[in-house]
Amino acid sequence: MQSAGFGVADAQRRDAADPLAGWRERFVIEPDGPIYLDGNSLGRLPVAAVDELAAAVRGEWGGELIRGWSHWIELGREVGDLLAGPVLDAEPGELVLSDSTSVNLYKLAAAALSARPDRHVVVVDRDNFPTDQYLLQSLAAERGLTLRPVTADIDDGLDTEQVVAALGDDVALVLLSHVAYRSGAIADLPAITAAAHEAGALVLWDLCHSVGSVPVPLRAAAVDLAVGCTYKYLNGGPGSPAFLYVRRELQSRLRQPITGWFGQADQFGMDSRYDPADGIDRFLVGTPPVLSAYGARAGARIAAEVGIEPVRAKGMALTSYAVELHDAWLAEHGCRLASPRDPQRRGAHVTLYHPNAWQLCQAWQDAGVLPDFRTPDRLRIGLAPLYTRFVDVYEAFHRLREILASGSYRSYPVARSRVT
Amino acid sequence: MQSAGFGVADAQRRDAADPLAGWRERFVIEPDGPIYLDGNSLGRLPVAAVDELAAAVRGEWGGELIRGWSHWIELGREVGDLLAGPVLDAEPGELVLSDSTSVNLYKLAAAALSARPDRHVVVVDRDNFPTDQYLLQSLAAERGLTLRPVTADIDDGLDTEQVVAALGDDVALVLLSHVAYRSGAIADLPAITAAAHEAGALVLWDLCHSVGSVPVPLRAAAVDLAVGCTYKYLNGGPGSPAFLYVRRELQSRLRQPITGWFGQADQFGMDSRYDPADGIDRFLVGTPPVLSAYGARAGARIAAEVGIEPVRAKGMALTSYAVELHDAWLAEHGCRLASPRDPQRRGAHVTLYHPNAWQLCQAWQDAGVLPDFRTPDRLRIGLAPLYTRFVDVYEAFHRLREILASGSYRSYPVARSRVT
Repeated sequence: MQSAGFGVADAQRRDAADPLAGWRERFVIEPDGPIYLDGNSLGRLPVAAVDELAAAVRGEWGGELIRGWSHWIELGREVGDLLAGPVLDAEPGELVLSDSTSVNLYKLAAAALSARPDRHVVVVDRDNFPTDQYLLQSLAAERGLTLRPVTADIDDGLDTEQVVAALGDDVALVLLSHVAYRSGAIADLPAITAAAHEAGALVLWDLCHSVGSVPVPLRAAAVDLAVGCTYKYLNGGPGSPAFLYVRRELQSRLRQPITGWFGQADQFGMDSRYDPADGIDRFLVGTPPVLSAYGARAGARIAAEVGIEPVRAKGMALTSYAVELHDAWLAEHGCRLASPRDPQRRGAHVTLYHPNAWQLCQAWQDAGVLPDFRTPDRLRIGLAPLYTRFVDVYEAFHRLREILASGSYRSYPVARSRVT
Repeated sequence: MQSAGFGVADAQRRDAADPLAGWRERFVIEPDGPIYLDGNSLGRLPVAAVDELAAAVRGEWGGELIRGWSHWIELGREVGDLLAGPVLDAEPGELVLSDSTSVNLYKLAAAALSARPDRHVVVVDRDNFPTDQYLLQSLAAERGLTLRPVTADIDDGLDTEQVVAALGDDVALVLLSHVAYRSGAIADLPAITAAAHEAGALVLWDLCHSVGSVPVPLRAAAVDLAVGCTYKYLNGGPGSPAFLYVRRELQSRLRQPITGWFGQADQFGMDSRYDPADGIDRFLVGTPPVLSAYGARAGARIAAEVGIEPVRAKGMALTSYAVELHDAWLAEHGCRLASPRDPQRRGAHVTLYHPNAWQLCQAWQDAGVLPDFRTPDRLRIGLAPLYTRFVDVYEAFHRLREILASGSYRSYPVARSRVT
């Protein structure tokens, strides 16, 4: 049943030829820990973050005390600028850490809607990550707007023509995910952005699953607005601050509603009237969580150092290998690929459909593999390129094949998970 | 010039009689560090936080990986419940960590305004902390509301009668600070809350400068809504997450606009329609910054263990001592007390007016004292009760007297500070 091409020696050969193999050493990896296939939910801990966070706690909070703000206040811009060129095709001053992805979505969507006051439609994807939809439901209700849904294929992603057909001179904003959270399908960001601009709309891209895994042509495609998190492929730590992007030409023309003192022109002038700062700072709100921002910086430094192109190449190689193993070993046991088959059209995770996915997930965990689960019937398999080896994929899929072949998963509960 | 009563021996006697003296050991204090009089901007590092944060980084992020969310997701509620009884007179489930103070102000103010749709006035304090005013300006503009300002005395705080006179059946919301950020004056929270309720308005209190320094009778006064930060007297670390409070009876009746997935009833059900969670969770938004939340927990644990009454007693003793030293040593050099003279009416900081306050601030720093500065002419002196000794106050004021008497401060620049 096992093809000669899929032995462990083959996986080892792929690792030996991997130009990114050495980057694994930049992360803390416990020798007896699980095979980790969930770096698309929470990235691993960079080795450098351990000492940097200890120094931030003991030396800065403990020793510098309030004086630390003389440099902490630059941290969000510093991380934004780290990501700008090598990871996100933006310019310095177009990206900044701020709040959570959800809060940033609210701020930027609200700012965009205020900039198109005569238009009353927002184009959204009914299969987008729930928080994106929730926030637009709230904004639409507040402002009397209409949501015009498009429906991405659950396995294959957005149909560009369907999105284009939803555009018109009544559309204020298009909000979509670049890489679909469930299938990993990549949207045609340049084509959709251009079509939206043609229609006079603004575009807000959710980059949570693309930042640090695939190139994002923010400048090249003249993207207006974007948000994303730093705790997935950027390895910033649990709940590390999100980022937001506003194209430079738009910054002075947009105003967001959560007008806190970090967005004020002269923050410490203590004026009682809000006067938004120039540039990206006007999209900030309150005091940022410094320790968590240091985690984000440690991860972003690695991403900036390695650059996105080799990461993308390895991401495609890893997901292609996973698809090959799926086809050879798992398909016959009721699994089905729930991601695009063309590696160019998917990010760095692949998703498998199986009617007993949650049972498989639990059995796989007990076999020493940590995957992700998406309700009700999908295993989401994150193959973070900086630290995932081909032998990890080999070994994990080998174990899943055993679980499927033996039927051992059937003894696990069918109830739902709370894995994020 | 020096009265016999104000020698160092007197300060030492006060420390020897201080029932809270031992708590200083719970904080990291460098022997050659400055005398720290800015714990009302950023509290000191709890000793326990050093190891707890190291374990959260190495053991949890690095070792548990995504599995850490099984307990991280409880952290905000855990810290809220720690504060509920002993610090903030609330019940478990009425407080939770979330976002920044500014974002929380926006959420709760918006929720309150939506609950009073037929009223169009918000009562605000023109001398309140700027971010509070900025957020209400934004909400008022969005919703076509009118701000009705009252004007607190810059040194003496809010006049309750003036606030009461501003109330009426057109008032939807009253937003005020419990302890004034500049003068430290305590507002009459029970009387104002009762009067607002009498008028049918909701009340939102900003507790940034009162939480962990003075008792806050949230339940006793039937306060509707409150927000505050954890990085001042709660010693949670730079930018540690803020908290929000919603009285239990109101929780199910209020809806806030930033409808992220952490506020969804079944967060991992991935439904595409927002359905707010029961209870305080509906006021959450996105993924919280876990490392910074651990800092908040370390600080909150100390606050909960010691309780608020002894902290309040020492806060009054420290500020009273500072006022005595001011009167004896500094008043003759052009300083003036810019806080209420009655210790019952001020929090744990005192503010001094001097026309050359920023120069004094710089000279004081060079003399080994870290105070706070509030533009344009005020020294804000935070006397955090858990770790500030009477000898610290003695020594700091002694040095300031030297600086004033010698005129050495005149050689410093007059320019403005960026100290938060």
